Amino acid sequence: MATKNQVYIAVIGAGGVGKCFLSQLRGLAARKPSPKLNLCYVSTSRKALYNDDYSEVNMDGVAEALAASSKPPPALSKVIDYLAAAPAKAVLVDNTSSQDVAELYPLALSRGVSIVTPNKKAFSGSYQLWQDIFTAAATSGAKVYHESSVGAGLPVISTLKDLVETGDKVTKIEGVFSGTMSFLFNSFAPTSGQGGSWSDEVKKAKSLGYTEPDPRDDLNGLDVARKLTILARLVGLPVESPTAFPVQSLIPKELESSSSGDEFLEKLPAFDQQMEETKATAQKAGKVVRFVGSIDVAANKVKVGLEMFDLTHPIAALKGSDNIISFYTERYGSNPLIVQGAGAGGEVTAMGVTGDLLKVVAQIS
Amino acid sequence: MATKNQVYIAVIGAGGVGKCFLSQLRGLAARKPSPKLNLCYVSTSRKALYNDDYSEVNMDGVAEALAASSKPPPALSKVIDYLAAAPAKAVLVDNTSSQDVAELYPLALSRGVSIVTPNKKAFSGSYQLWQDIFTAAATSGAKVYHESSVGAGLPVISTLKDLVETGDKVTKIEGVFSGTMSFLFNSFAPTSGQGGSWSDEVKKAKSLGYTEPDPRDDLNGLDVARKLTILARLVGLPVESPTAFPVQSLIPKELESSSSGDEFLEKLPAFDQQMEETKATAQKAGKVVRFVGSIDVAANKVKVGLEMFDLTHPIAALKGSDNIISFYTERYGSNPLIVQGAGAGGEVTAMGVTGDLLKVVAQIS
Repeated sequence: MATKNQVYIAVIGAGGVGKCFLSQLRGLAARKPSPKLNLCYVSTSRKALYNDDYSEVNMDGVAEALAASSKPPPALSKVIDYLAAAPAKAVLVDNTSSQDVAELYPLALSRGVSIVTPNKKAFSGSYQLWQDIFTAAATSGAKVYHESSVGAGLPVISTLKDLVETGDKVTKIEGVFSGTMSFLFNSFAPTSGQGGSWSDEVKKAKSLGYTEPDPRDDLNGLDVARKLTILARLVGLPVESPTAFPVQSLIPKELESSSSGDEFLEKLPAFDQQMEETKATAQKAGKVVRFVGSIDVAANKVKVGLEMFDLTHPIAALKGSDNIISFYTERYGSNPLIVQGAGAGGEVTAMGVTGDLLKVVAQIS
Repeated sequence: MATKNQVYIAVIGAGGVGKCFLSQLRGLAARKPSPKLNLCYVSTSRKALYNDDYSEVNMDGVAEALAASSKPPPALSKVIDYLAAAPAKAVLVDNTSSQDVAELYPLALSRGVSIVTPNKKAFSGSYQLWQDIFTAAATSGAKVYHESSVGAGLPVISTLKDLVETGDKVTKIEGVFSGTMSFLFNSFAPTSGQGGSWSDEVKKAKSLGYTEPDPRDDLNGLDVARKLTILARLVGLPVESPTAFPVQSLIPKELESSSSGDEFLEKLPAFDQQMEETKATAQKAGKVVRFVGSIDVAANKVKVGLEMFDLTHPIAALKGSDNIISFYTERYGSNPLIVQGAGAGGEVTAMGVTGDLLKVVAQIS
């Protein structure tokens, strides 16, 4: 049944990113000549579609078929057994943000199953897990690609890997790594000098769908810290975890224990004064305040928090919910290599996953 | 002699980019575990280093060995014979800007020899050559990578290919594609409103080494037109040649026939008035003038020349001799995906070549 150069694909997760990915995968399959991709497994947290003989899951109407399926997903270790025994090379596409799935990457990789994923957890959790993942991949030859774990589909991870692998010396990485934080500060402290109150901007961002259901999950800075952890490790800094360096939380201490996001939003206006002062201090200096992450490679320092920037600085001039990532390196000298654009959203995140899948398939088929 | 997964590398050209590439290649070989690269051939236009039994050319002191070599380079078709008969897969790294070498890519590819190169000529010459190259590669399975043909080591080609291959719809590409033009206009018409006379800025750029020996080779716009041709073809526009669309030359008609670059520079001040008027017109509109290339994909229109930009536009805010390339696509919406940074120079150009080589080796070894 396996034809030469065929690759078996299993997809876990069919939510926002997963749906977009499946649609992009269908687009690839429709192209002539298309890569020989055989979708042999799809699952959500409650349902699964697969055939014991690895025959293809129909890519059209996967959502409907999943809804109609009566098969619960097997244990993940069984899915890995299934893929490792496939008639040709296999790729596990993890479109979840699950720590449990991430923990099994070393097992999958050690059994020759490649991994493609936007899941930050695997690469920003314990340093031990990071080492286990890349050791397993190096040993078995299976690939692990995770472009969308930082900046969604923007070429961030691939660019950093190219810099490092070709022998450039990265001295500093700096940027705005959160679409939510970008939107909040571009609205709260625009270079034009206007901008609403902090609590109003947070409410507006939530109503536009730019924040997590509980905005504190964005404001605590952990999402940015996870991305910085990944980039720092890629340049060779053995960062232990995303809490192993200074991360400024924008949640007032008093509201950390609010019972819900709604209660938090209700009480937030009482704390606007502090952010107003920060904005005013920046304005007096002819600057704007932004929420950034930075890695000083030589000093082995990673940090996340508020910084002030000149109005002409690319970070100040950012628009909407865009991300911007600046790589300072020996070869690029005083002007960094900059990548900028949407760093969140289903389609662009899925694009990073699909692009990675094509790169992996080109190597293993 | 051939060990498993080894790849044979032939390098043509040991000038500015070639020297940097050879140094980066030495860096790769020194790394443990290093890719199994066997440098079996190096040549300049007058000398060559190689052994009939494919044994390795010593990477240390290649320049000295070339100088001391008494072997003239064989005909290029012979070099292709030699590589096609190598004991394992081979890659031809073309670090020249030679049309003659470019013309032989289809032959090399059809015989299974992959190509890695910064040489624009192959991809911006006749559309027939473009088709021959990619048809030969598709048929034989050999790879052809040319990241540094646009924007040097900046991730421009790879990003555009990812967008297209994952099914995004690119609507427009716009940017500053020439380090020389970038430097000239950032100095002549800075956003701060100062700036010297046009002819002074051209002289300064030449004295700093930012122009070709004859600055007219930059000012005629052909270099930018070549890059636009490559990008337009990658999004599917069958552009016939770099002279098949409007390209604005900044060489006054009267000076086209000047006998030398020096004579041109001497006479240029007499023509400053026109550029001053262009600058003044832009200033009155609160804008600055820049030399840009753009591709309107839907309208199938490519053009190169002067355009005016708001002071807050990323193209206006560019610094030094940086390039900037904006990709407008369906998935990225109103804010483009932007790549920015040094787009010229030996080290960053060689970096694009070395990065491509690693990608090709990962696929063929």
